[in-house]
Amino acid sequence: MSNANTMRVITQNALGGPEVLELKEVERPLPRPNEVLVRVRAAGLNPTDWKHRAGGGLLGAPPFVLGWDVSGTVEAVGIGVVTFAPGDEVFGMLPYPYGHGSHAEYVIAPVRALWHKPADVGHVEAGALPLVSLTAWQALVETAGLQAGQRVLIHAAAGGVGHVAVQIAKERGAYVIGTASAGKHGFLRELGADEVIDYRETDFTEAVKDVDVVLDTLGGDTSVDSLRVLRPGGIVVSILPVGSREFYDEAERLGVRAVRMLVDADRAGMRAIAGLIEAGKLRATIAGTFPLADAAEAHRLGDTGRTTGKLVLTVD
Amino acid sequence: MSNANTMRVITQNALGGPEVLELKEVERPLPRPNEVLVRVRAAGLNPTDWKHRAGGGLLGAPPFVLGWDVSGTVEAVGIGVVTFAPGDEVFGMLPYPYGHGSHAEYVIAPVRALWHKPADVGHVEAGALPLVSLTAWQALVETAGLQAGQRVLIHAAAGGVGHVAVQIAKERGAYVIGTASAGKHGFLRELGADEVIDYRETDFTEAVKDVDVVLDTLGGDTSVDSLRVLRPGGIVVSILPVGSREFYDEAERLGVRAVRMLVDADRAGMRAIAGLIEAGKLRATIAGTFPLADAAEAHRLGDTGRTTGKLVLTVD
Repeated sequence: MSNANTMRVITQNALGGPEVLELKEVERPLPRPNEVLVRVRAAGLNPTDWKHRAGGGLLGAPPFVLGWDVSGTVEAVGIGVVTFAPGDEVFGMLPYPYGHGSHAEYVIAPVRALWHKPADVGHVEAGALPLVSLTAWQALVETAGLQAGQRVLIHAAAGGVGHVAVQIAKERGAYVIGTASAGKHGFLRELGADEVIDYRETDFTEAVKDVDVVLDTLGGDTSVDSLRVLRPGGIVVSILPVGSREFYDEAERLGVRAVRMLVDADRAGMRAIAGLIEAGKLRATIAGTFPLADAAEAHRLGDTGRTTGKLVLTVD
Repeated sequence: MSNANTMRVITQNALGGPEVLELKEVERPLPRPNEVLVRVRAAGLNPTDWKHRAGGGLLGAPPFVLGWDVSGTVEAVGIGVVTFAPGDEVFGMLPYPYGHGSHAEYVIAPVRALWHKPADVGHVEAGALPLVSLTAWQALVETAGLQAGQRVLIHAAAGGVGHVAVQIAKERGAYVIGTASAGKHGFLRELGADEVIDYRETDFTEAVKDVDVVLDTLGGDTSVDSLRVLRPGGIVVSILPVGSREFYDEAERLGVRAVRMLVDADRAGMRAIAGLIEAGKLRATIAGTFPLADAAEAHRLGDTGRTTGKLVLTVD
């Protein structure tokens, strides 16, 4: 479909439902200094994609190309790049905000956003892991400083970020409590969760206490309620970008910490994640793959919020 | 001079000599997600500043604000920033290309470009170190993989990058050979250089051999000539962004490695550099400081190429 100077991308000229997504042929970009051009083989989808498609978010007004996750092959390198060479297999998360993302045949990435794809996972799994893994890593390890023996509560533990966070927390030696609907408890046990809570049947603030770290993937009332299950000095890390005053005021009153975090592209984090994958400590559950041209269909499925595991776009 | 919504910057509307630099009052920017607004206390000057002022380089056409080095205080943080809070003292190198740089009262920086300023150095020294230290770190450690006991040749070892590279190479346990004019040999010995060569009197290709790593800060003929002093399998890392075919062809013929590297903003590198500073293993030699408004004067001095150590702009 595309020639040597062009590429196909999924783009949109209006905010809205999956129907605003269009396949277009555009000029293929050139890497600037310390950037590489990646031939995309797989690009994970995340809730941030549905949210930006519908609301613009950090990207503002369209046109833009969504997609922060990428796994693929280095096609060309910009001036000064020594970390990668054409032909190298790489994976990573593009920085926020972006707007010329990975839902395309090719994408420009800063070298500091990438690391070498572990040889023992394919592009689909490698393309599903970066954003969720960096989120969990930065929340649990870098922000909360999770230690062996600590108690961690992970909300929506069977979700994209959640199922990766369970694995990272277990690898650090924590005692892991996860919330999920009953049908997903077996999945969580397999990932290593020590305790599972059916949030439909049970109020977690009554079922859990003395927690050191809460990873809040839900926001709203859950953020504030989560403060009440902490030990003194404990921390809630919320990965949703908007906060309310009450979250911080209540934390101060209770003598605990309340933090809102936004995942950031980072080479050191990708390197740590590659290490976990290579050690067999981290894997992605894939809900489904879709060819790039069928991105709208993947978005429709994502919008339902009912998939278990990650949706991934693939490019041949 | 500036009010709560504005800031003074050094900018230019034309390419040229130091006289194109002007002090202007502009709107103070707001940090986006994963960015911070830094109140600049000190901003190092580098050859990249004179080159971009005169030639545009990676920045293209003016207007732009130069300055990649910064040390200062976090004034405000964008959405999702957890690494830093207002009031924190930070230092770092802004990413290439930039164009709204640190030669200003305030600058926006991605959080991944910054690290905590070591408490035991002032802003002037902290503002002088990032770009040269990251360059030396990324060239010697990350690119060349310098090991204890290896022989390293550093060209212009008394220069901005050179004098930092000597310290980093010594800290890694390497045997350090530096080139400099005779008047700077005492300075290099104090920094720990094991051997010094007066490049005006001596052809380094005759005086040096069996080198594992060359850090080439000069380019041109020096890049190609440096290949000839390497052991088989050795490496020349050139930090100049433009290469010639001969550099690579000759390396292939000789069975050695030739790499051109451009320094990249990086949190992990800044963290390593902060560790060296805190351990007393790395310091900057300061040639002079100038108030922000006198940036043109600092550029005139920089253009001469005759200073020993770093020039730094300061903001009260």
